[in-house]
Amino acid sequence: MPVNLSAPDPESLHPVAGVALGVTQAAIRKADRKDLLVIKLEGGARVAGVFTQNRFCAAPVTVAREHLAAGGEVRALVVNTGNANAGTGEPGLIHARRTCADLAELIGCAPAQILPFSTGVIMEPLPVERIAAGLPACIADLREDNWFAAAQAIMTTDTLPKAASRRIKVGSAIITITGIAKGAGMIHPNMATMLGFIATDARLSAQLVQDAVAYAARKSFNCITIDGDTSTNDSFLLVASGKAAMNELNDVRSPDYLAVREAIAAVAIQLAQAIVRDGEGATKFITVRVEAGANEDECRKVGYAIAHSPLVKTAFFASDPNLGRILAAIGYAGVADLDTGKIELYLDDVLVAKRGGRNPAYQEADGQRVMKQSEITVRVVLNRGQASTTLWTCDLSYDYVKINADYRS
Amino acid sequence: MPVNLSAPDPESLHPVAGVALGVTQAAIRKADRKDLLVIKLEGGARVAGVFTQNRFCAAPVTVAREHLAAGGEVRALVVNTGNANAGTGEPGLIHARRTCADLAELIGCAPAQILPFSTGVIMEPLPVERIAAGLPACIADLREDNWFAAAQAIMTTDTLPKAASRRIKVGSAIITITGIAKGAGMIHPNMATMLGFIATDARLSAQLVQDAVAYAARKSFNCITIDGDTSTNDSFLLVASGKAAMNELNDVRSPDYLAVREAIAAVAIQLAQAIVRDGEGATKFITVRVEAGANEDECRKVGYAIAHSPLVKTAFFASDPNLGRILAAIGYAGVADLDTGKIELYLDDVLVAKRGGRNPAYQEADGQRVMKQSEITVRVVLNRGQASTTLWTCDLSYDYVKINADYRS
Repeated sequence: MPVNLSAPDPESLHPVAGVALGVTQAAIRKADRKDLLVIKLEGGARVAGVFTQNRFCAAPVTVAREHLAAGGEVRALVVNTGNANAGTGEPGLIHARRTCADLAELIGCAPAQILPFSTGVIMEPLPVERIAAGLPACIADLREDNWFAAAQAIMTTDTLPKAASRRIKVGSAIITITGIAKGAGMIHPNMATMLGFIATDARLSAQLVQDAVAYAARKSFNCITIDGDTSTNDSFLLVASGKAAMNELNDVRSPDYLAVREAIAAVAIQLAQAIVRDGEGATKFITVRVEAGANEDECRKVGYAIAHSPLVKTAFFASDPNLGRILAAIGYAGVADLDTGKIELYLDDVLVAKRGGRNPAYQEADGQRVMKQSEITVRVVLNRGQASTTLWTCDLSYDYVKINADYRS
Repeated sequence: MPVNLSAPDPESLHPVAGVALGVTQAAIRKADRKDLLVIKLEGGARVAGVFTQNRFCAAPVTVAREHLAAGGEVRALVVNTGNANAGTGEPGLIHARRTCADLAELIGCAPAQILPFSTGVIMEPLPVERIAAGLPACIADLREDNWFAAAQAIMTTDTLPKAASRRIKVGSAIITITGIAKGAGMIHPNMATMLGFIATDARLSAQLVQDAVAYAARKSFNCITIDGDTSTNDSFLLVASGKAAMNELNDVRSPDYLAVREAIAAVAIQLAQAIVRDGEGATKFITVRVEAGANEDECRKVGYAIAHSPLVKTAFFASDPNLGRILAAIGYAGVADLDTGKIELYLDDVLVAKRGGRNPAYQEADGQRVMKQSEITVRVVLNRGQASTTLWTCDLSYDYVKINADYRS
């Protein structure tokens, strides 16, 4: 059961001018489910992305990087679920390029103008013929108001589709930002989440699209973890279709651009949090905030040590304020000169530990009260500097084991 | 259920001359269980240890380090289970010192000649009066043939006591090595396991005792992981009582010393593997061997990425050869210039992957056959150098979650 998350209202997902989406059931792994998505872009769109740092990155990640680096105008994205096309060696690259070529022929562009994405099981051959067979149906389905179906078509073990949308005013123009994402497991993004696509009709220079995608990733998908497994397929793409009635923004310091960038990051954060809320087996949504560190890197080390600890995560699942486990995780986070005597640990508003040990005023009943909530903030104050970071994670439950023990079976 | 592990036969645990052990039920956390151990050493014993790198290290670890550094002759160890005395700040240190002082008075030595150890729940005050009250019973129980009871007295969530013993001939002398350990959870030792104590009657110089404990830790307790959580209390002590009929060994290159060191390491490996076999919820014993790396550090990174991955561990639990998850873990292990095209992945004798993808000759049935075994070797050949490493871990099951969700309740 996802934590305080419901499916988005399809009506709330504003179309983005110049961006059309089409889906179909291609039977890539299972019948009777949407599993193939084409996102077609009108001419003039600018696209930038961030990708997994996993050395066993998937074939489509390699091809998408190549096509972006080639610098041609991107005309379409193609996304399949059910098969990750990762750990597939040279045949995997051939399959990813074949899919680009098939779609390019159908819509009349060069293969290098297509970006491919895949998600699903690793180390199995991509059923490339089924994808080819499904592409015409996707094209027939292309509509600008099709974001909800697109969110459904990229799900794997997600229990709910994930999409977010907002509009902001920039000068006299209203610009729209709409995005979709999928997550659920193998989630510890290192550059980006499993799959996230955000489109806006804002007119942004190529440099600003790149800046905005990196900024949004850093504030959102790079701040979540479910199980600490960095996927082979993580990809986060930002499309700026440029169809809004505005002059092109090209100054990274301009207030208009900063407003657009914050709105894009807000959509990305909403999607990233949705991934955690729908994490495999999740019953709690945990915010880990690390404050007053010497630098952001050590804040992230401490935060991830807490967020990855199976012992901490099972204690949250049990609603058991066995909070010494959090101190242990802070202690092994790898901050060599950490003075544990200076650290304060809060659970929401409850001061649990200070001066290297339990706060004398701490009452187990207070910890218990917070632990029973479905949303909990762990706040660690290092008291050694000005840096801070915020991460989001979930608990570790029986169902995580069940889902991952059964995933292929 | 532990994996291919049974309780040691008490008769198999050879006494070590000069090392007497006594236990009692002190009701530290629960009634009716052995939870306090004193190990008393005759004069002339040499002791060396390695301890957790966790910055929130327990008060007894701090005190034991201080007392060892002071350089006096160690006369006794005192170990309690049920409470870790970690995350307890200044009061924790006072409690650990008080326990040393109480025992010192009873056996007639200085407090700095006592080394304290604790294991159990973190961030709760040590019930120091109960320990004081239990010490006389431990002393009354002191016997050299009491290793089995000692192994029982240090258990927490362990389902079986862990002890190992062997004898080797050095010149004309027979020397004995006997040790005990406890583990079960919060196991990813960084210097040593939760608690391990090995004694030998070999006569070793102070330098060689230090060398042997570091060597044995590196070969054993530093090669295991259950959940990746490095404990606050990890301690591994080696006692050389010097009672064997032999000249003192003082050359780190002498064949006699190297034979003793290997025998000590063999006992340590047996104890370390027993900890993994009795890991919380374990149903499989997994050996991860990484070969042909450029250096040992990168082999360990790759090995631990596999051994810590919840997705890999749940696949083992399910006996599901979803082996792409292992490739993904190799890919995110943090070896920046890894060429995935060169890597070979074996499951026991089955070549699963090569050239960046699945081995064309690999049959799912072969993977399935190996995955159903209770003991499995994952072998990764990096093909970029001469270094190798071997780690041991277990799977991640429903019972891991259950045990850790219920541990305090």
